[in-house]
Amino acid sequence: MSELRQDPITGRSVIIAESRAARPHEFATSATNKVMPCPFCVGNESLTPDKIVSYPEDAADPGWQVRVVPNKYPAVQWDTAAVGTHEVIIESPEHILSLSELSHEQAQLAFRAYQHRLRALSQDERLGFGLIFKNARAEGGASLEHLHSQLLGMAFVPPEIQLEASKAGEYRMLHDRCIFCQLLADEADGDRVVSESEHFVVLCPYASRFPYEMWVVPKLHEQSFENAGAEQIDALAKIMVQSIQRLEACLDSPAYNYWVHTAPFRMSRHDDFHWHIEIAPRVARLAGFELGGGCFINAVAPERAAERLRLS
Amino acid sequence: MSELRQDPITGRSVIIAESRAARPHEFATSATNKVMPCPFCVGNESLTPDKIVSYPEDAADPGWQVRVVPNKYPAVQWDTAAVGTHEVIIESPEHILSLSELSHEQAQLAFRAYQHRLRALSQDERLGFGLIFKNARAEGGASLEHLHSQLLGMAFVPPEIQLEASKAGEYRMLHDRCIFCQLLADEADGDRVVSESEHFVVLCPYASRFPYEMWVVPKLHEQSFENAGAEQIDALAKIMVQSIQRLEACLDSPAYNYWVHTAPFRMSRHDDFHWHIEIAPRVARLAGFELGGGCFINAVAPERAAERLRLS
Repeated sequence: MSELRQDPITGRSVIIAESRAARPHEFATSATNKVMPCPFCVGNESLTPDKIVSYPEDAADPGWQVRVVPNKYPAVQWDTAAVGTHEVIIESPEHILSLSELSHEQAQLAFRAYQHRLRALSQDERLGFGLIFKNARAEGGASLEHLHSQLLGMAFVPPEIQLEASKAGEYRMLHDRCIFCQLLADEADGDRVVSESEHFVVLCPYASRFPYEMWVVPKLHEQSFENAGAEQIDALAKIMVQSIQRLEACLDSPAYNYWVHTAPFRMSRHDDFHWHIEIAPRVARLAGFELGGGCFINAVAPERAAERLRLS
Repeated sequence: MSELRQDPITGRSVIIAESRAARPHEFATSATNKVMPCPFCVGNESLTPDKIVSYPEDAADPGWQVRVVPNKYPAVQWDTAAVGTHEVIIESPEHILSLSELSHEQAQLAFRAYQHRLRALSQDERLGFGLIFKNARAEGGASLEHLHSQLLGMAFVPPEIQLEASKAGEYRMLHDRCIFCQLLADEADGDRVVSESEHFVVLCPYASRFPYEMWVVPKLHEQSFENAGAEQIDALAKIMVQSIQRLEACLDSPAYNYWVHTAPFRMSRHDDFHWHIEIAPRVARLAGFELGGGCFINAVAPERAAERLRLS
């Protein structure tokens, strides 16, 4: 049973999801605790719940390249107080650990799957938002090492999205311009830019929370990831793989997370948005200062990080 | 050089502190990277910057029981753009790893030292807040394992404190009552209470972010930790040691953080506060959902956690 709770003092949102306590932990300290065989590997399909969809579309089990299944230990569920749906997107039939190992074709299929699933959830009137995120490697919070991402469809809009949407809305009202488009203009050719393609800019944000944090921002103003064009999605797959490759060359294959920030499915008329992906390398641990103060300390200036990433 | 940066989109605060990149890491993967000898052990005083103060007051080096030194790798400094002071409070001359190992006398001295140092910083007109926090064990973000806490004196009030103070102020205005006193009344004898003494209640908060999260809340309404009475501080030392012992009995000595939430030094007249300590066990990793959505998932309901902690 899952439950969405609000802290009575701060209003902070917490999902209490006791079913998740039963998750297997491949990264447990003892090797004997390893989950074998891997439920995400091709041939082991019977170890996951029935698939939601496979890609290329309607691929057989086995025979799939990307496979989407319900999360066996969901954080949200339809029949609980924390309403929603929790999917796992397995981006490769092979037992690989990082996005950097995907071929261009395989990566395209993965990002198309993200979009396809998000688009499907956006049609569901009960849902307010869909968060796609990846936890890669143990320090990134992965409980299974086989490359996968998660899509959480939620009744509520999570605080980070509410904040970005409302700030972007305020900016739009004051300046008649998108705050993300302005950011791209301000950062253009600057020392925080890591790379640039026809469709995207990759930059280390001015107030990076994490060493080597990167944002992948589309040049074309579009609120929703699910509405991005096919050409954009293919270009995204390419620049995402490149960016993770840069990171891994720079930092000796660190754990990382990334997440897609896209507009709420039903946006308030006072809000604005510009979808993008944020990449968070997990080389420093969040500690008492960050958790207790709500303020990050980052020991690598983004200008220095961008310089190193550019050269990687 | 340190710098306080605000994210142009969200307004989020980040301290960019490049000097911290040079910190030694006792917990590095290879044993040969261990920092030896431990700079916090008695007899090795020359390995830290000159002490700020020792306890019992004016104790010699060696001869001290608790020792306060400037952080060698400060997050904030007087001569940088992120203004403040960063102290390390070494709570034992012996090489121990957890608060649970302190004798009652030694723990009293440690919490008196917290108060003494916070009181000293509160006199400094340039500072707006002092955050005392502990990172215990590697997963808790400690870079040296020898028991220690940190005190960061900051020109600004960190977001978590701003939020609590303003919410408590709103509540006071609407209900003419302290929101924390109300919380204690609401939770009294309930299934989230872990323990209670003459002066304190220890509870697992309703919207616990972390499995086995505990808050240690004084029954006596007092805004500032630095103004708590001597009897309170001694009782705090006792219940904090007990609470960490319960946690370690329950969870096989996990990493943990705790932090003192106290009123800003110069509080806005619209704010209110009630000092307390929050204990965050670090048994689950923060991952893409938490970092990307700003919303926590907790697999252990606080009612269940409190039950187990009560029995430990």
